[in-house]
Amino acid sequence: MDAIVNNPTKTGLNYTKFESGSLQSWIENSVEIPGLGKVPGKLFLKEQMGLTSTEISINALPAGEGMPFHHTHKQNEEIYIFLNGTGQLQIDDEVLDVKEGSIVKIAPNGVRTWRNNGTEMLVYLVLQMKDNSLAQWGLEDADVPEKEVVWPE
Amino acid sequence: MDAIVNNPTKTGLNYTKFESGSLQSWIENSVEIPGLGKVPGKLFLKEQMGLTSTEISINALPAGEGMPFHHTHKQNEEIYIFLNGTGQLQIDDEVLDVKEGSIVKIAPNGVRTWRNNGTEMLVYLVLQMKDNSLAQWGLEDADVPEKEVVWPE
Repeated sequence: MDAIVNNPTKTGLNYTKFESGSLQSWIENSVEIPGLGKVPGKLFLKEQMGLTSTEISINALPAGEGMPFHHTHKQNEEIYIFLNGTGQLQIDDEVLDVKEGSIVKIAPNGVRTWRNNGTEMLVYLVLQMKDNSLAQWGLEDADVPEKEVVWPE
Repeated sequence: MDAIVNNPTKTGLNYTKFESGSLQSWIENSVEIPGLGKVPGKLFLKEQMGLTSTEISINALPAGEGMPFHHTHKQNEEIYIFLNGTGQLQIDDEVLDVKEGSIVKIAPNGVRTWRNNGTEMLVYLVLQMKDNSLAQWGLEDADVPEKEVVWPE
């Protein structure tokens, strides 16, 4: 475990792998955000992993806590994927209950905030990508090389 | 629960919310893929949720199973986020162990396949977004309106 904790990023020819730890361990992370100071339970991955298409944060929010502000986006579609716990998202004054498996897409103009109103850690991903940036996807974007799948013993 | 199962998607002015169910329930999904037939444990969200920036699939792969082919992408960066279980990703002949919390970015040219070589259900997300499509992110893309955060009682 020490090796993973001390060196969580590994890069090869066409990949970067980051070990974020168990979902419940995400509360140990923190980020410095100008104007907000040190925000516990949040880690951004774009710089960490050299992502070119998205900024992803991994998040853990303790019971009873919530964002102290609303926000909108200029260019980016945002997607929230909830993995544990229960909470609420407020979007343009509408309140949505969320829990494990709730996935919410918000258009740039949506005025959003959220909170953990449950008793467990609220664990979630936040993804932001440029609105309308996907040109092709699925099979249309894929090639299947003629190469047998062989795994080492 | 019936209401959620029967009507998992809810749309408002600036959002779409989809209830995918608990992570362990994802094995109940399936998709039809031309040439492969019915693939259990996989569901694509782009069409389901009207996503414009990414195709996301939610995935559950039983112990001992794996992809029968390799694939690459033409335009899209792909990110795998592992949420439960243990498995292996093979990228350009290199084998990487993955588990809860492993996050792997693969460039379009990476030749990839994966398997569940553990004893639990391998649960994971696969995201694809256009390589180099993100123009700005984080605070630079955000606005914070002057609006107090108020929650209903």
